[in-house]
Amino acid sequence: MGFSERANGYIERVEATLDRWLPAESTEPRALHAALRYAVFNGGKRIRPLLSFAAAEAVGLSPKGVDAMAAAVELIHCYSLVHDDLPAMDDDDLRRGKPTVHKAFDEATAILAGDALLTLAFEGMARDRASSRAIGELAAAAGSGGMVGGQAMDLAFEATKPTREALETMFRKKTGALIRAAVVMPVAERGADDPSHRALGEYAEAIGLAFQIVDDLLDIEGSTEEIGKPAGSDEARDKATWPALFGLEASRRHADDLTEAAWAALARLPGDTDGLRWLGERIVRRRS
Amino acid sequence: MGFSERANGYIERVEATLDRWLPAESTEPRALHAALRYAVFNGGKRIRPLLSFAAAEAVGLSPKGVDAMAAAVELIHCYSLVHDDLPAMDDDDLRRGKPTVHKAFDEATAILAGDALLTLAFEGMARDRASSRAIGELAAAAGSGGMVGGQAMDLAFEATKPTREALETMFRKKTGALIRAAVVMPVAERGADDPSHRALGEYAEAIGLAFQIVDDLLDIEGSTEEIGKPAGSDEARDKATWPALFGLEASRRHADDLTEAAWAALARLPGDTDGLRWLGERIVRRRS
Repeated sequence: MGFSERANGYIERVEATLDRWLPAESTEPRALHAALRYAVFNGGKRIRPLLSFAAAEAVGLSPKGVDAMAAAVELIHCYSLVHDDLPAMDDDDLRRGKPTVHKAFDEATAILAGDALLTLAFEGMARDRASSRAIGELAAAAGSGGMVGGQAMDLAFEATKPTREALETMFRKKTGALIRAAVVMPVAERGADDPSHRALGEYAEAIGLAFQIVDDLLDIEGSTEEIGKPAGSDEARDKATWPALFGLEASRRHADDLTEAAWAALARLPGDTDGLRWLGERIVRRRS
Repeated sequence: MGFSERANGYIERVEATLDRWLPAESTEPRALHAALRYAVFNGGKRIRPLLSFAAAEAVGLSPKGVDAMAAAVELIHCYSLVHDDLPAMDDDDLRRGKPTVHKAFDEATAILAGDALLTLAFEGMARDRASSRAIGELAAAAGSGGMVGGQAMDLAFEATKPTREALETMFRKKTGALIRAAVVMPVAERGADDPSHRALGEYAEAIGLAFQIVDDLLDIEGSTEEIGKPAGSDEARDKATWPALFGLEASRRHADDLTEAAWAALARLPGDTDGLRWLGERIVRRRS
């Protein structure tokens, strides 16, 4: 059985954990809890949880020990989409073809729903007895030195042309850090000097940067139907993107080079790396 | 030496931890990190950290084991003020006489700063090896079943008159849950059935509700100078408050009764409860 078949089982696992962690919609305050579930059960591809399960396979760990990490990283991802879509941020009305949370509910509920999802990530990990190192790894990736810092940089770049170095730093923080956390959390307890921890980190950093470059490419090349938001919306806002700085062909080539670097890191892992390879391919070749 | 003298030392301790956890303002992205420090070092009275240190005294624990909890609960409090002040929420321009974060910076930075402070609370606890039970206790108090849920209820109450029961539930969630977490975190590892855990919980719930009632009273009775925001702003928005439902005198009396219940709980604790008593008095008799 290839990873593509196992992936469905892993998606079921993470959605079961998310369903267990999230209060029922009938729990007061109802609008808030409805918004939490709307933001989480939204047709997402669960790439980050799959990366956690695939990383566990690559070092020979059982999926059971990864369930809490996988659910937590997905909650952080979902909260970031809710807040990034807000009028004061990217001001998007659609997300995967459906109204964004502040459109389906209201702005205050969207702010609070994001706050609650972020908090629930750590509550769930603590309740399911994840290691404090894994909690610390996820929090560091999500905070001002990682994802939130990257979003702040991205907003500051609007209508300015950053250097390649600044753009790459922004990418590594904004999307790369959380992808890295998804991949290394399963071995977080071993510390940063562990050879598998290092190899997983290198894989994740390469794939994470490729992911963001492909995201920018899709914004230009994709149709509105395929990506679920108006195509060319980055360009319309004169946003700093990789293709805007380096062109389409060079961007596509750079994404491919990064993928090769990721494969080289995988060769140093002791377990089954088919899943990480499959996910890497999917990230770089995806069409939406 | 009474607790009022020890309090200054505790405030120095928690501000040292906060200073250690918060990135320097010179760290990129600078505006975000400046906003984090602006939101945290803002003349706050550090009531919640003091409650954690006083709770440690009341069960005979050393302050060293409480440092991370005290800093984390203060970060959660600070983030909640930043998000609550946003235009889509309470829309306040002033906080303790100074421009709110979205006024001093901008709205996007305020959203991201709140997110980063919330995340840093858990990163700091994890990095300083707080117990997962303490992390879970804080997260549960801060999330949709606690503070965030209370804020959602409060917003839904605007221009409606809730029942006393609904108002009390809102108060217990919106401010009570975090105060409770501040007080019980030092004994979180012992579990909810521990007699000291129970007594601390009862003290905190009584004081927490009194705190909110006094807050509502101050909004009516206080001057703008004393409370640092326009007096009567709740009334102007026809907000659900305890005095609006029950009158000034009955509200003041209820706050006093709750304080008596808090003293009764303190009598069951083995250590020095002067600090918790001093803080309780200060919360109920405060003028700002």
